Amino acid sequence: MTKKITFAVDAMGGEDSPKKIVDGIKLFNKNNKDVYFKIFGNKNSIEKHLNNFIDKNSFEIINTENQVVDTDSALGGAKKGKDTSMWLAIESVKNKESDIVISAGNTGALFVISKLNLKMIENIDKPALSGLWPNKNGMNVVLDLGANIDCSEKNLIDFALMGSSLFKSLFSNETPKVALLNVGSEEIKGNDKIKNTYKKLSEIRNNNFEFKGYIEGNKIMDGDVNVIVTDGFTGNIALKTAEGTANFLIKELKNTLSNNIFAKISSAINFSNLKKFKNKLDPRLYNGAIFIGLDSPVVKSHGSTDYIGFSNSLNVCKKIIKGDLINKIKENII
Amino acid sequence: MTKKITFAVDAMGGEDSPKKIVDGIKLFNKNNKDVYFKIFGNKNSIEKHLNNFIDKNSFEIINTENQVVDTDSALGGAKKGKDTSMWLAIESVKNKESDIVISAGNTGALFVISKLNLKMIENIDKPALSGLWPNKNGMNVVLDLGANIDCSEKNLIDFALMGSSLFKSLFSNETPKVALLNVGSEEIKGNDKIKNTYKKLSEIRNNNFEFKGYIEGNKIMDGDVNVIVTDGFTGNIALKTAEGTANFLIKELKNTLSNNIFAKISSAINFSNLKKFKNKLDPRLYNGAIFIGLDSPVVKSHGSTDYIGFSNSLNVCKKIIKGDLINKIKENII
Repeated sequence: MTKKITFAVDAMGGEDSPKKIVDGIKLFNKNNKDVYFKIFGNKNSIEKHLNNFIDKNSFEIINTENQVVDTDSALGGAKKGKDTSMWLAIESVKNKESDIVISAGNTGALFVISKLNLKMIENIDKPALSGLWPNKNGMNVVLDLGANIDCSEKNLIDFALMGSSLFKSLFSNETPKVALLNVGSEEIKGNDKIKNTYKKLSEIRNNNFEFKGYIEGNKIMDGDVNVIVTDGFTGNIALKTAEGTANFLIKELKNTLSNNIFAKISSAINFSNLKKFKNKLDPRLYNGAIFIGLDSPVVKSHGSTDYIGFSNSLNVCKKIIKGDLINKIKENII
Repeated sequence: MTKKITFAVDAMGGEDSPKKIVDGIKLFNKNNKDVYFKIFGNKNSIEKHLNNFIDKNSFEIINTENQVVDTDSALGGAKKGKDTSMWLAIESVKNKESDIVISAGNTGALFVISKLNLKMIENIDKPALSGLWPNKNGMNVVLDLGANIDCSEKNLIDFALMGSSLFKSLFSNETPKVALLNVGSEEIKGNDKIKNTYKKLSEIRNNNFEFKGYIEGNKIMDGDVNVIVTDGFTGNIALKTAEGTANFLIKELKNTLSNNIFAKISSAINFSNLKKFKNKLDPRLYNGAIFIGLDSPVVKSHGSTDYIGFSNSLNVCKKIIKGDLINKIKENII
């Protein structure tokens, strides 16, 4: 028998927790018997939802009375102390008792507590929040999505290296194509920081990634590159703008498809196709942002996702460990 | 008879010009007999498309042999000299022979030539490229969309003032609600520049706009505010990301609605509803970016739009003049 992977799970974060966390674990467990769970949170509440669905050898519950909530500030959440489910879950990877930590709770607090507890990977200056973004051919890795409002050239270069390692761990061992998000595709566009980063990335010669130059916002979903690098301010606004645009369009489409009897009939005929459309774009499919740069991986599941989305984040966790993300990053550092 | 408004039109810019420019003018002219056109470009080519469709008292053609093309750099386009259709059209507003200038040509060159020829409005440091962005209730004005990669606090405050004047000229005389694009809605989010701008905008007491604080990317289309202020780097990336997301979704939807016989039948039944959906989101409806901050208005129609889109930009031009944009800006300056 191969050694099980151990996930440290903060069960108390996000909407409808711990129910959705436990339901997500149950769903994931069906096809993933090689993962052991350390579940941090209110034992009574967790056990109530667990209903003996999982083999007792697959998990343990570490009872915690205190928890970080969404209304806490990042620092406020950290200051709640070392007995919150979030802190203890992170401490579990720090102490090498778990391989990876996941939470659907307060992003800012998760970031601060992770930085307080975990070491940076040598030669990386700042950890980045990276996410998966669907494109025509599959998924991009995009980073930073908001952890670092101000970034230096060195930070952006680190993000290119780390993002490439993440892409390789998650999707394929082929050399990822990396692009820098900018306001134009010509070399002279953008501010000095972007231009200098472009120059430095162009000069890097290795097998870890292929630098493809600048990418504009309207090309993110074209599927021509695999890793898109930007500072946390721009990345956060781009991600949320895309989210808002998609929500707006889908709401308009729903209205169109139900606003009279012809629309209703046609939607009924087209049910399975429309379902495919919906499924393909289901945000639960790419749920899970990953803090990279620390010496253990930290995964943030969306606070408002349901148990299916949470279960998909657990898939991301497993791929990260199986794909040996941290060592891939260490090997890539220049 | 009231005095006609005069538009200076660069007929040689954008795809399929001058045909689409002339067709756009013809369409617009049907319901707008109070506008006189000074059309700058190749006289033979323009006359060929004009086909005597417009009353001879409604236009004149100023023959030009030289033109700025899309592959020119911004500066390169300007350096082509004072005999391009773009330069001469701009010179026409400079000399007060026209009220407003419009081009579907090279954006960078249009910006540079406008700045070379036209004066800044007093106390405005930088002109901004502002655009219309659809939302749940109508349209937002968003600026800057890429003219100014680096912006100071003063610039952002100017954008708030000018954007409010633009919104009033175009849509309504009610006090516009202004928001600052940021990575979070709490006062402490963002970088120092954003936070200082927030503070200063909060302290402005006037009737020109109501400051509503920060707005996140996913709220741009919610329709809760009217004017969204950001620097040109972020604004350009947000706009293009929204465009890319919309294109991606609509392409996926098209595939869904035609990928088998059931989909085709249902789409046929739903034809008029789907058409409404498409029409409502037609980018030609909000075609036309406006440079504001110069002492004459300069309108940029999208290079790839067709004659209907161009005609809609002519509507924007008329609203700007009827709404007395430049004087509204001057009155708003603090």
